[in-house]
Formats: sequence, C-alpha cells, structure tokens
Amino acid sequence: MPFHAPVEDFRFLLEKVIGFSEVTATPRHAEVTPDVTDAILTEAGRMCDGILAPLNRAGDLHPARLENGVVRTSPGYAEGYRAIAEGGWVGMAAGEAHGGMGLPMALVTCVNEMMGGACLALQLNPLMTQAEIEALEAHASPELQALYLPKLISGEWCGTMNLTEPQAGSDVGALRTRAEPDGEGTYRITGQKIYITWADNDFSDNVAHMVLARLPDGAAGTKGISLFLVPKYIPDAEGKPGEVNSLRVVSLEHKLGIHGSPTAVMEYDGAKGWLVGEPHGGMAAMFTMMNTARLGVGSQAVGVAEAATQAALAYAQERRQGRAGGTGAIVEHADVRAMLARMRAETFAARAITLACAKAIDLGRGGDAGAKARAALLTPIAKTFGTETGINVADLGIQVHGGMGFIEETGAAQFLRDARITAIYEGTNGIQAMDLVGRKMMDGGEAAQALIDEIEAGAEAARAEIPDLAEPVWQAAETMREATEWLVAQPMAERFAGAMPYLRAFARLLGAHYHLRAAQAGDGKRRRLAAFYIRRMLPEQAAHIAALRAGPEPVMALDAGDLAP
Amino acid sequence: MPFHAPVEDFRFLLEKVIGFSEVTATPRHAEVTPDVTDAILTEAGRMCDGILAPLNRAGDLHPARLENGVVRTSPGYAEGYRAIAEGGWVGMAAGEAHGGMGLPMALVTCVNEMMGGACLALQLNPLMTQAEIEALEAHASPELQALYLPKLISGEWCGTMNLTEPQAGSDVGALRTRAEPDGEGTYRITGQKIYITWADNDFSDNVAHMVLARLPDGAAGTKGISLFLVPKYIPDAEGKPGEVNSLRVVSLEHKLGIHGSPTAVMEYDGAKGWLVGEPHGGMAAMFTMMNTARLGVGSQAVGVAEAATQAALAYAQERRQGRAGGTGAIVEHADVRAMLARMRAETFAARAITLACAKAIDLGRGGDAGAKARAALLTPIAKTFGTETGINVADLGIQVHGGMGFIEETGAAQFLRDARITAIYEGTNGIQAMDLVGRKMMDGGEAAQALIDEIEAGAEAARAEIPDLAEPVWQAAETMREATEWLVAQPMAERFAGAMPYLRAFARLLGAHYHLRAAQAGDGKRRRLAAFYIRRMLPEQAAHIAALRAGPEPVMALDAGDLAP
Repeated sequence: MPFHAPVEDFRFLLEKVIGFSEVTATPRHAEVTPDVTDAILTEAGRMCDGILAPLNRAGDLHPARLENGVVRTSPGYAEGYRAIAEGGWVGMAAGEAHGGMGLPMALVTCVNEMMGGACLALQLNPLMTQAEIEALEAHASPELQALYLPKLISGEWCGTMNLTEPQAGSDVGALRTRAEPDGEGTYRITGQKIYITWADNDFSDNVAHMVLARLPDGAAGTKGISLFLVPKYIPDAEGKPGEVNSLRVVSLEHKLGIHGSPTAVMEYDGAKGWLVGEPHGGMAAMFTMMNTARLGVGSQAVGVAEAATQAALAYAQERRQGRAGGTGAIVEHADVRAMLARMRAETFAARAITLACAKAIDLGRGGDAGAKARAALLTPIAKTFGTETGINVADLGIQVHGGMGFIEETGAAQFLRDARITAIYEGTNGIQAMDLVGRKMMDGGEAAQALIDEIEAGAEAARAEIPDLAEPVWQAAETMREATEWLVAQPMAERFAGAMPYLRAFARLLGAHYHLRAAQAGDGKRRRLAAFYIRRMLPEQAAHIAALRAGPEPVMALDAGDLAP
Repeated sequence: MPFHAPVEDFRFLLEKVIGFSEVTATPRHAEVTPDVTDAILTEAGRMCDGILAPLNRAGDLHPARLENGVVRTSPGYAEGYRAIAEGGWVGMAAGEAHGGMGLPMALVTCVNEMMGGACLALQLNPLMTQAEIEALEAHASPELQALYLPKLISGEWCGTMNLTEPQAGSDVGALRTRAEPDGEGTYRITGQKIYITWADNDFSDNVAHMVLARLPDGAAGTKGISLFLVPKYIPDAEGKPGEVNSLRVVSLEHKLGIHGSPTAVMEYDGAKGWLVGEPHGGMAAMFTMMNTARLGVGSQAVGVAEAATQAALAYAQERRQGRAGGTGAIVEHADVRAMLARMRAETFAARAITLACAKAIDLGRGGDAGAKARAALLTPIAKTFGTETGINVADLGIQVHGGMGFIEETGAAQFLRDARITAIYEGTNGIQAMDLVGRKMMDGGEAAQALIDEIEAGAEAARAEIPDLAEPVWQAAETMREATEWLVAQPMAERFAGAMPYLRAFARLLGAHYHLRAAQAGDGKRRRLAAFYIRRMLPEQAAHIAALRAGPEPVMALDAGDLAP
C-alpha cells in the first residue's frame, strides 16, 4: 500500500487554518514565500513517497542488530538516510551560518510528519540530530559549534540524546553518570545510559552523543547536572573523526515496534567529553532539545496516523463483503465508515494542533512573548494528543482490516506497534499532562484563557454561517474556561489526578476549533469532516471534564490493595 | 511476573453481585453446591497459576510452526494441554452422558477467563473444542455423538471451526466450499478455509473439523449452507483414528499476537465429511457454537485484562522514581494510580457483564424465556466490551510500565498483541454492535428495557445507603431508556452508524450497575472502586449517547473522497 505525503492538507492548514502567513510576515522568515513553501512540501513529499515509505516494512522485518559491537542497520536504511541528508532535511531548521535552511518550525513540522509517516524508525534518526543541533546552537561554545554543526547539519554525523539511566527515567535528577575534569579543558564521562535511540549506525562518519552527567561538585538532583558532547570518534586537528572514544553499545533492545531504530544500552568508560553550556546547566540545555523533540514526537505519530488512515481506506475500498450498497466494498458499511471518519477527523485535528504549536514557536522566537507562552502551553498537548492519535488511529486501522489486520503482512499492525512508543518516549504522556497542569499553569491559566478567548471569538464569528457547528464549539470553550478557572484554584498536588482528563478535554476543544476554521475556509469535504468531529467526537470533552471535576479523591482514595485482584 | 487467578473476585461476583444462586436453585444445576463452586474455582485457579501461566511467554517467543505439513506446537504446550484435558476443563460444560461435568456457563466462564488470562494462545484450543461439543450435542445424530463426544470431552481429540474463506468473512453466505454426497451416506468436502484457529497440533490423537460447505442443491447465501464434521483421521470400526483424510494445513499465518496458537489456511480436497444437523441447516448449527464462543472470547479477553492489571500493579509497586510520597514507588503518582484504577475498575465491570451473560444463558437453558432474551442481548455486549477492555487495559499496562512497556522482555506488550485479535474474531466488534441494534432489538427493545428496569430498581434501592453513587447510575439508566426508545424508532438501516456508540453506552451503564451492587455488598475496597468507576468513567456514557443521537448523517454524508488525505 503506497504512502502519499498529505501535501495538500499541509498547504490547506498552513494557508487557511493556522495562519502561517503571520510567520512568513516576520523578518526571520521573510524569504519563505508561498513558492518556497510549495517547493519544500513537494520536494519532501516526493522523497517520502518514493524513497522512505518503501523502507518501512524492511525495517520491521530486519531489525537493526549488533554484531561484534557494531550496529548494522536495516536494508535500505543507509540509502534512505542519504536521501534525507542530501535533501537538507536533517538541518532544515538550523541556522544558515552553518549550512542549515533556517526553515520555520511550522514547515519543519510538516516535513518531520511526512518522514515519520513514511518510515518512523528511520525518521527518528534525523529527529535526534535536529534536537542536538538546536541545543548546540543555543548553548555550545563557538569552537564546538564550528566543529560540529556543519557535520550534523549536512548529515555526515548523527546526534543522540543520553538522559535515561536504569534508576533515572522520568526522574532525570536521579542520574549517576559522572564527569571528571581531565586537566585538558575536557572531561571524562563514566556511566551507563539506557534507551538510547539510534545510539549508533553504519552510515554516518561519526556519532556525537549528548550526555547528561554530574560534575564532582554537582549537587544532588537536577540542579547538579551538566551536558556534555561525547563523540564516538574524537575529531582530530582538522576536525576529521580520529581516535576511538571510550564508549560502546552494550546491547540493543528487543522492542514491540520501530525495529529499524536501534535502541541501545550505552556504556561510557572515561570517555572524553566537552561541556556544553554552563557547568550544572545541563537541564536548561536539555530542555531546549526536549521541547522541540516533544513536538517532533507528536508530529511523527500524526504521520503514522496518516499512513494508517490511508492504508485502511485503501483496504476498505477494495475489500468486498456482504450486501452493502454501492460498490459492495466495506467502506459502504456504516460502522467501517465511522471508523475511517474518526481516523481522518482525528488525524486532521492532531495535525492542526502540532502546526499551531509550531507556529507559536516560530512567533515566539521572533520575540512575541504571548506566542512563547502559547508554544509552552501547546507543546505537551501536541505531544500527548498527537501520540494518542497515532496509537488510536493505528488501532482503528487494524479493526478496519478485520482478520487481515492481525496478519503482519498487511502492515496495519506495524503502525500500532511502531506508534506505541511515542506515548512513552520524550517524557511519557503522563509527564506531559503534569507539565500542562503544573508548570504551564504557573501563570494562573493566562495562556490557556487567551487561547480559549480566541476559540470563542472564532466560534462567534462562525455562528452566522454555520450555527450548528459553531454553537457546540462555543459551548465547549465555555466549559473549558470554567474548568481552567477551577483547575488553577486547586493546590498543585491535587491537580495531577485530573491532569490527563484536562489535557484530553483541551485537545478535543482545539480539534473542534481547527475543524470549525477548516469548515469555514474549505469546501464541502472540510465541512463534512468538521460536522463528524463536532457532532460525534467533541461530546467526549464533557466526559473528560467530568473526570477532572471529580477531583483527586476517587483516585487517591484507592490504595494498592484495592487494585489487587 | 506470576499470574494469580482472581478466584476471590469470581466468588464475590457469583455470590454477591450477579446472583449465581438463582442458577444453582434450578434442577439442572442442583448439585452445584457452594463447596463444588469453591472446588472448581480453586482447582482451576491452581492449574492456571502453576501450569498455564508459565507457558505464556514461551508460546510468544517460539510460535507454532509448520514442518513438512505437520504443526509443531510451542514448548510446553503439550503438557499444558494435558493438564487442561485431565482436569476435565475441555468438557466441563458438556453433558454428563458422554463424560462431561455439566457445569453451568457461569462457572465455565470463570474457568475460561482464568485459562485465557494465564495463556490465551493455548486456551483457544479447548475453547474451540467446547464450541464444537456444544454444536454436536445440539445437532449431531446419536451415532456421531457417541463416536465423537467422549473423545472431544476427554480432550483426546480437538475440535475446530471452519467458517471463513478468502471472499467470505463477516459475510459467511458468500462461501464456496462444496460438499458432494458420495453415495455412502457421507460427503466429499472441497474448498479452502482461512483463519482456522488450532487447525492442527502435535498433542491430540485426532482433530475433528467443523466445516461449513454448500451441498449441490444449496441455495446461494446463508440459507444454502450445511455443517459437516471432517476428521483429520477417519475413525475406524472401533472409533480409533484410522485412514488419513484428504485435508491439509497449507500454511500458518504470521500474526501480531497469540503466536502459540497456529492459525492456518486449510485445504479440503474431497475430504470425507459427515453431515451435522439438517441439510442447509448449517447456519443454525453454527450459531449454537458462535454464541457461546462469543461469550468465551469476551471472557478470555477479560482474562488478559486481569493478567495485564496484575503485571502493571506489580511493576508500579516495585519501580521507584521521583519524589512521590510513601514508598517512592510510581504507584504513588496520581496519574499512574489513575491508570491502574481504570484497569482494575474496567476489568471488574467487563467480568461482571460476562458472568451476567453466562447466568442468563444458564437460566435460559432451564426454560426461562426472559433469561433467554437477556442472554441474546448481553452476548454482543459481553463480547465487544470484554474484548475492548482486554485491549484497552493491556494498552494502559504498557503505559504504566513506561519505557519498559515497549521492551518485549517485560511481557506487557504481549498482552496487547495477544488481546488485539479478540475484537476481530468470532465476529468483529462492528458485527456484534450491528447484531445488538438489529437482530437483538427486533423485540422493540423489550429485553433491553427489562434490563434497564432492573438497573433503575437497583439504583433506587441503593439510594438511601449510597446516594452519591446511586443517583448517577439511575440517571444513566434513564438516559439509556430514552436512547433505546429513540433507537428502536429508527429504520433498521439508519441504526448502524450508531451501533457501536449504543453498545458502548450500554456497557458503561451495565458496568456502573454491577459496581454499584458490589459497593453495596462488599467492603471499602469495593466501594472505592465503584466510586472511581461511577465518577470518572460513567460520564463517558453521555459522550456515546451524543454520538448515537447525532444520527447517521455525520457518518454517511462522508464519501470515500472525503476520507482521503
């Protein structure tokens, strides 16, 4: 089943729904004309359809493997990676000073989504490098930047993020990896890191690991953590990969999905590292990477939702069964069509949220403080809702396929297996929800209410034209406003039991908002999808709000014994 | 992670919640004293914990395979099967005339659930045989019964169901397998069948296939289908497996889960078969098998939900992370506890529904027409809600495990992979929902309203004691009553777009009903779980009802073009 990058949908969303012209109107992105946007989307789409998508199943069938300490990647991945690197897509967000394209995040997000939809396991590789580039641009010394950025941006070298340790997952502050100054201005890094995505490969000249570790005078907890750049091969005087560093891939994990992406246990044994940013400033630097990576993870999962939707639709149009009207294909069956409609409407909603988040990042980088706050608010929603959409849509895709969905040859099951990790890595969705109701509400809900204001204004503006769709959206916004007021009045510790319901309720509302805009700006198709979403799916918001408003008591009253059989 | 059959929960549900004593008060089951019930549950639980559960991962890692036409089963499966057979659990529902235990379905359902939770892939084997035994008891000639039933009941021989063909899945009527009379009172069966569960094995002396085929004078569609018994080895004069029949396993599928269960393409090439029941009466006979098999599938998925919940709880109690209160284990985190609470509360609700369905079957067999109608109503709900619970709970289990959930060694992912098929086989959940709003509402909603009456009466009775829990249940019952009245007033063709929302709304209400009963009859634990379910989960019913009441238009207005990217 061929994948088609949803270039038209991106174009429509950018132009008609999320207001991408506000980004291209800023001086930073003045050169991104509509022609440039078109060229980027078309070019990237062509690569995804023609080169990356055909690799997806091969990666699943022939996982990356470790042979005598060397990672061997899946068949075709080296060629796929080369296409990504040569297209400039690794460094598309990076500054032009070191060879990047300097594209706005809204466009970067489109391209990342397409690549993720075409081949999630491979796309993870440049996603990691993108995050590293961003951290180096923001925090590394000019010397490190001059040495590493051109190589990473061109894709000659790859990047990784090394946070997790066996005892330190969501609680990064518990990490034990040590960094000792070696008297030469560099450091010796020692410790074990786990779940390292694309820790190694057989197609790049070097791998530059970003590693969180504690200096000898580092305090306990997150405040004593520093960030280091630890290359696989130590660059020589000319910047060429030279001496082998004291680090190794210990093992690769046997995972549910993304088999083509090697997930490693890494051992650092006095490996030479360079400090990035200030001593003990590692968390700040890491957060730079993590926020964009979180949006990136949301987008890649939306890409899987797109791929799963296309595959299920193609199957449902082809498969004949029973006496349904029209062609006799199962797409004529009401239940199958309802599943496909949900897949398509949800994918659109999640995509709109990731692009709105990206736009806010772009405007925030241009100095707009309100946009910055909005980006911060939308990031955990884009990550969580995007990844839940990837998983739920892939699950529906299996169901549309019926018995064939359970057979691996179809590929429907792979979408679910691959997407499943996205709700976990880059901060579990539970962590995202806590971030939303905690840190992102430290402003007393101001950023949230500003967004809700906009949604209400949009619904009011749509009322004359499409009252039956505008009214429920306005109501849902009011419900969200009250829920937000209620939430910020709760003590912090009491918010967490309702964190996930609050996030999901907000996402449902946002999805309705963008569908409503699409209905106004688009043709009959957009209006019918919006009607499906608003009438069949938006009512779920009320259920989430009810769970939120039940407060922490129904959850926290239960003890572990109550949960046993 | 060891599995513990939830014997206490079964006991509580049977005694205090679903009213099992009404079954044991009937003459058919007078010998099932509380001591017998206890012995059955304890004995079966011991086998599940000690013998079956340890086989679960081996089956996943070492799938059944086909070697030179012979199926080789997973390591230990032969011993596991022997334990099931020797315990009498294959024939536990069968009449005592041919060596069965004659247990009521309510108890059979408990045992099937336990076995499914311990090792789904292996338990599928006796589940198929149970269905075949039931069909033979109801429809086969005394000669066939005398020959086959003792062997199937003892487990010496296994049974299978052969319905699906490449072009005939949900639409069984499209099947092409032919049956030609051979002049000896038997028939020659020719055709290909797919998705045949446990089509063969290396531990039983024979395999007796139940095959749907069309006689030469069979009409097109379902009315021209007959049922045949087609053994792998043709029994000789003494009933011993003799000559090899003309049938073979062509290939085994490579599946997302239940790797230990061989799913085969079967080729019948003039194989000798015996007619079961009347010519052209195959569908009626098959329905006998299918209804019980549907409940069985719901139960086995509830078993997986139980296993997944136990594993996630154990992990969450052991895994330390962050600065949560108490022990520092992640079970202290509100979001993790909310996930575990959902897993436990949902598992209980789904279990209660399967047992209520089983009880209705038992009373219906005793001649109670109202109970018969209730069993018919509850079967698609028990199947669909049970299987969605298995899948959703297993998915939550992965999330509770965080990064470890994505690593296959943990076993959390296997629960999801295994459970995923249950929403598809024995009639997809979409088919179940159509059955509920179609065939099961041909009575104008009478059976549904009778059940809603009972739920309302229960809520009224609970009002004095626990008003905060009783009131929402009463309200939800009223909502369901109105929705049912609305539904049965719709033309049949217009019901289907809302079939799944209607089913899910009903299941949410039923779950609340049984939780409320549990809260009244049980201790603080039961009350706290009920509070969680009623306050955090029951509100989802309203969202399903809203989707239902939106009518078919939002679904059917969308055409295939609208669903493309």
